[in-house]
Parts: sequence; structure tokens; C-alpha cells
Amino acid sequence: MTTTETTARSQDTPTAMIDRVASLLEVFDGHHRLTLAQISRRAHLPRSSAHRILQRLVELGWVERQGFQYTLGIRMFELGSQVVRRDRVHQAALPFMHGLHHSTGLTAHLSVLVSSDVLHLERIGHWPEQEQGWRLGARQPAVHSAAGRALLAQSEEWPELAFPSPATAYGIRTRTQLSRDLERVRDRGGVAVDDQGCTVGIAAVAAPIGPSESNLRAALSLCGPADAMPTDKAVAAVRMAAMDIWYAASGVTRLRGRPVRLIATTRNQ
Amino acid sequence: MTTTETTARSQDTPTAMIDRVASLLEVFDGHHRLTLAQISRRAHLPRSSAHRILQRLVELGWVERQGFQYTLGIRMFELGSQVVRRDRVHQAALPFMHGLHHSTGLTAHLSVLVSSDVLHLERIGHWPEQEQGWRLGARQPAVHSAAGRALLAQSEEWPELAFPSPATAYGIRTRTQLSRDLERVRDRGGVAVDDQGCTVGIAAVAAPIGPSESNLRAALSLCGPADAMPTDKAVAAVRMAAMDIWYAASGVTRLRGRPVRLIATTRNQ
Repeated sequence: MTTTETTARSQDTPTAMIDRVASLLEVFDGHHRLTLAQISRRAHLPRSSAHRILQRLVELGWVERQGFQYTLGIRMFELGSQVVRRDRVHQAALPFMHGLHHSTGLTAHLSVLVSSDVLHLERIGHWPEQEQGWRLGARQPAVHSAAGRALLAQSEEWPELAFPSPATAYGIRTRTQLSRDLERVRDRGGVAVDDQGCTVGIAAVAAPIGPSESNLRAALSLCGPADAMPTDKAVAAVRMAAMDIWYAASGVTRLRGRPVRLIATTRNQ
Repeated sequence: MTTTETTARSQDTPTAMIDRVASLLEVFDGHHRLTLAQISRRAHLPRSSAHRILQRLVELGWVERQGFQYTLGIRMFELGSQVVRRDRVHQAALPFMHGLHHSTGLTAHLSVLVSSDVLHLERIGHWPEQEQGWRLGARQPAVHSAAGRALLAQSEEWPELAFPSPATAYGIRTRTQLSRDLERVRDRGGVAVDDQGCTVGIAAVAAPIGPSESNLRAALSLCGPADAMPTDKAVAAVRMAAMDIWYAASGVTRLRGRPVRLIATTRNQ
């Protein structure tokens, strides 16, 4: 038994083992194919134990081996897709997102805040075709995106919010700039407007779905080419659809413009 | 320390621990929210070790706790979505799937064979809205689906293929029925046609992407209402698009109707 193997064995407490499995799968974040050497280096695991864990994960379908390289397995996709597919807000949002895309021609995203980023849970529409950050399952810095600022505007404080260097000249750089933008979001009734903050040439508008107290805080957004974005129309459409999704997800229906709870309606309400 | 805990500890070999983490995450397959009792029962794990593993997975973001219930975490979705997003065939297929959906109004799926099922890697289109089996990340029995039979028709043998009870009166029940259908698929130049084999009211046509020797064997399909399916048009559209996707994914382009390899072209070819 080599020295690294001895060290590996002594770290095989249950929690350490969970962490190793997780860290091994996490190295594929942003990398499609990796060799054993790359995996063991990135996961900070001895080559022997990385190999041992990989072998088992391949047998379980969580990792796939193609020649000398490994990728995440189809089982990861299958389980992961259920996280979103069974979510109530996502289910409620789908028909409205298709409707928005159909009526405006713009691409609709459903996104949530994950630490300092927004993560796209759903996307309806093909444009922009090549931009990685706008894809399903991708992240964008919250402060640079309309979806992120729509969600941030609902809170008073964001102590741990990061301000990554903007990828464009239009991205927000400071807490003061952000506060000013969030004032405008609140003046607009909660709708955030972004002009090329994430990507040159792409504009977006976003509205939060439901109040800030709700469990899953998600934003609905529409993006389109910055030089041809029908901003006013998109602001109105996104605000209305976000409200409709919230009513649909929370079992509330609107009657003559007034929200009425479907379950336990009060006659005098 | 209780008896179950002692048993649990003695099973904490690395492989056993990987299996326990995996089996614990796998119990969420088909279940959105589960209690600790349900998880420990379904994963065949003592309650104490299920709780210990869950706690760590919650800290890592792989599982989320909501009150007394657990769900898969957003991190599973994020990693899982990369499996497909970074796949070459998927990337090549997206524009053609959007084009197909736009020109036919039918819903396009990109699916792969996983044991006896097809698993949907991508879906463009909103219809059918409520049917779980047609959703992104969902599975359908290969023998009952057009996508499955388009892929099965490329192989001569399928020794371990299962014939689950069809959900409709139209599903294929026997190996003989399947062989007859696959003959028709081959007569149609590889395109499979299914009339309500998976779901009453839903018809589909499917073509394999690329030859059977290729690495990722995927099928492209179009589905629509059985009573208004433009079958001939869909067969032609799906066959053409599947070919285009294969050329795009494999770096081959077609010039005046003749495939020409982009890299290493031969002058006399």
C-alpha cells in the first residue's frame, strides 16, 4: 500500500467519503470531459482513491467513461431534471413562458438566486444561440442581470453579495450603482431593466414571481437584441405574466381583476 | 450507540458509502418531497445514517430541507443540466429542433436509449402540456415509442429488452410484433411511426441521428395529436433534420446534396 493510499484510507470516515464523492462530481462543473489525472488534481484526491470512486460511479451510471476520459453520466441529468420539473412554480410558469415567447418573439427565462448569481431553471426560445450564460442551467452574476436585480430589489440587504468584474462596459460595479438601479426597479413596480450588463448586444427585462416572503423566489425575464428591444411592451408583458404565474402556482385565481383564493374563499372578501 | 448504528458503521467501507450516498439520492427519482422516515425506508438505510448523510448533502447543496421534508437540491439540477448542454449532438440539434417546431407546430424531442427506455434529453414545444412521460428528463418504454423503435431498428439484437405492459391498447406487446414494426421502420428508411403506443391521443414519428456505430445514439422525434398528425410531412421533416444534425455534429457539411467532410476533404471524392 502506497503512502497516498494509507492517507486515503484513514480519511474514509462517512462525512469525508460523502465530501469526496461530491467533490469528485463537482469537478465536472464547467468541464465536459476530464482524465483521471485532471479529476484527481481538481478534486484534491489521491489518484488511487479518485480511480476507486470513479469506478463505482461509472457502475452506478453517475459518471461515464469514454476511452481515457470521464464525463458526468446521463443519470445525473435524469435526477437533476426532476428538481425543476416537479417544482410548482416551474410547472405554473411553463404555459405563460411559452405564451410570452410566442407573442413577443423574445426568449423567456425562469431564474432563481443562488448566492451571488442567478441560475436559469427554464428557458423558452432559441435566441441568443451561442451565449453560454443564457443557457438552461447556466449562471449569470445577479448584479449584472435583470433577473438578479428584480430579485435583489425585493430585499433590503444583501450582506454577502459579490460584485464580479462586469464582462461589458455596462455592468454594475459598486454597491452605490446597484442601490440606484434598485430604486428605479422599485419605481417601475418591481420590474428590472438591463441593457447589455451581462452580454454586449443583449437587453433584458425581469419581474419577480410572488412576494419576497415566498418560499421559492424566482424571476421571470425576457431577453432580446439590445438595438431592437421593445422595452415598454416587454416590461408590461413580464409584469403581467409574473403575476399570473404566482396566482397559478399559489392556487389563487383572479376574478374581475381582484385576486381570489381558490381554496377557502371568504364570502365577504 | 444503538444496534442499527453499529451495523451502519461496520458497513462504512468506501464502496458501501458511495452506494449509500447514491441510493439516498436515487430515492427522489419520481418523488419530489420525502420525509426522513420515507427516505430511510426506500434507501434501505438505518434512520440514523440516512439522517447523517442527508445533513451533509444539505450542507453541500445536493439536497434541500423544507420543514420535515427533503427534496433534491438545485446543485443536482445545475450539474445534471451540464451533461446534456455540453453534448455535441445536443448542441447541433437545438437549432434544427427549433426550426422543426416552428415549421410544423409539432413538439420536437431529442432522446437516447437507456436500457429498455428512451430518455428525453431535450424538448422544444409546449404540447402535450400535462403528460409526464413526454417531459424533459422523463422516460418512456422504448418498444412503445417512435424514438425507441427508430433506435432499436438500427440494431439486430436486443437481448435484454423489456416489454412492459402497454399503457394503451396500441402498445407493442411481443417480440414478434416488434420485429414486424421494425421491418416497416427499415422500409421507411429508418423512420419510426407510432400511433398512440405511449399515450392515447398522441402520435409520433422519429428518426435516428447518425449511424448505429456512432458514439451517442440519439433519436429526433416529432409528436402531435393523433387525429390531426400530418404523418407524411412529419416523416420527411424528421428524416431530413436528423441527417442535418448528424452532419452538423460530426463536422461534415453537405454540398450540392452530397456530404463532404469539412476536415481532410479528398479532391477526387
